[in-house]
Amino acid sequence: MRRSAVSVTLAQARRVIEAGEAKAAEIGQPMNIAVADAGGNLVAHVRMDGAWIGSIDVSINKAYTSRAFDIATKDLAEHSQSGGQFFGIHVSNGGRVMVFAGGVPLRRDGVVVGAVGVSGGTGEQDQAVAEAAAAAFG
Amino acid sequence: MRRSAVSVTLAQARRVIEAGEAKAAEIGQPMNIAVADAGGNLVAHVRMDGAWIGSIDVSINKAYTSRAFDIATKDLAEHSQSGGQFFGIHVSNGGRVMVFAGGVPLRRDGVVVGAVGVSGGTGEQDQAVAEAAAAAFG
Amino acid sequence: MRRSAVSVTLAQARRVIEAGEAKAAEIGQPMNIAVADAGGNLVAHVRMDGAWIGSIDVSINKAYTSRAFDIATKDLAEHSQSGGQFFGIHVSNGGRVMVFAGGVPLRRDGVVVGAVGVSGGTGEQDQAVAEAAAAAFG
Amino acid sequence: MRRSAVSVTLAQARRVIEAGEAKAAEIGQPMNIAVADAGGNLVAHVRMDGAWIGSIDVSINKAYTSRAFDIATKDLAEHSQSGGQFFGIHVSNGGRVMVFAGGVPLRRDGVVVGAVGVSGGTGEQDQAVAEAAAAAFG
Repeated sequence: MRRSAVSVTLAQARRVIEAGEAKAAEIGQPMNIAVADAGGNLVAHVRMDGAWIGSIDVSINKAYTSRAFDIATKDLAEHSQSGGQFFGIHVSNGGRVMVFAGGVPLRRDGVVVGAVGVSGGTGEQDQAVAEAAAAAFG
Repeated sequence: MRRSAVSVTLAQARRVIEAGEAKAAEIGQPMNIAVADAGGNLVAHVRMDGAWIGSIDVSINKAYTSRAFDIATKDLAEHSQSGGQFFGIHVSNGGRVMVFAGGVPLRRDGVVVGAVGVSGGTGEQDQAVAEAAAAAFG
Repeated sequence: MRRSAVSVTLAQARRVIEAGEAKAAEIGQPMNIAVADAGGNLVAHVRMDGAWIGSIDVSINKAYTSRAFDIATKDLAEHSQSGGQFFGIHVSNGGRVMVFAGGVPLRRDGVVVGAVGVSGGTGEQDQAVAEAAAAAFG
Repeated sequence: MRRSAVSVTLAQARRVIEAGEAKAAEIGQPMNIAVADAGGNLVAHVRMDGAWIGSIDVSINKAYTSRAFDIATKDLAEHSQSGGQFFGIHVSNGGRVMVFAGGVPLRRDGVVVGAVGVSGGTGEQDQAVAEAAAAAFG
């Protein structure tokens, strides 16, 4: 048995980001968009002109989180509120775990091999852009 | 095309802080008052005599947060409680994101070019002082 | 009087990165390349396929450092060794100050308005790629 | 016996900073200037227009360091280089200890009751401004 190193290339990350930018432009909200690889490590990031500077870190860490737990951050959020089974997980990993919408896994043949993280608007907007971005992966 | 960014001079920051101090004196609550520029970086800070030392960092980071997300921290607070769309954002950016009242953007021609952060009293007091301070920017 | 700050657009950052990638390909060493704006905040980052994951943070922080002190990190290095006038500066700013080659300011009309940071090879290689990248800014 | 709370008022900090600004203007180098109280906690900070953003943190922590060890950071530097008796102290206190010139104690009746920290130029410039600033305390 082997631990396969299928991951995300820079070219693929750029296609994912490009699709995210198109969606962000469509909804008229500038975004930070980041792509992480199978190791949770950053492959590429862009901040669209006018996007929040506080969202740089958030986008990178939404991508990290989504790969770190192989889950959409939107779904992680459900269990991470006060009273939930994972409440408090947001302070783990040095504060890198983002428990709100905008992080979506990138899958190949059903296996998570990376993730995209989007931050710059409402939770709904971030999620819409992240899903459009992830759909371009393949 | 260029990304242009008018920011905040030290002289302007001092006028903002002076207005904040006057309001703080009026309500009888010593405050920490900080001003950040367009990049979220500190321009000036004062701690009034008797103000909390724990509020030094809070005031500086309220200013940072308000510029980082182009929003009053009071409004960010609404969405950052457990169950809200941004719950968990307070651990991002190395713990610099303050999700309670007292950070107010500084605008020029409708564009956020910096922010003021106030800490030292109740949320209402901090907010009142921050608004009085921001009103002196122009 | 106003503190004005022309900065770096995403389109400009991409041209800088593209030039850096071309140089990295020429010398056959995959690199991380990051661009920061006038506030020291990240505009864009890419990790070329095969580049070190430890260099993600280094490239981003070389860009930060070069803008934070308006200097090439290579030159900062000269004064930051044991016995130098700035020895110890590398622990300031939360460990974000990189005191070795690979960070180069981006200037407009002689004023630093951002920076590029490169990490992935020897100091000489990082510097060569950063200089080629910076030369594309304008 | 009492632990006396003689410290630095905001009015005194402002006089110290004003004297530092005058010296910085005289030598033509914009500076960050910070004043800490007897507890090592920030009383006031200014960043002069055009001063390095990386020096915000450095100036605040030079003031902290100077009070934390009741010593000029220039003198602490002598013993903190590789091979010296305090080498490594710069990573203590969460990276807040600055071991290069520009931090000077503020004394009353021979007792250190605070400190000023200056950053923005060469070690010599920072030290000259810090000494001019400290001389205004009394």
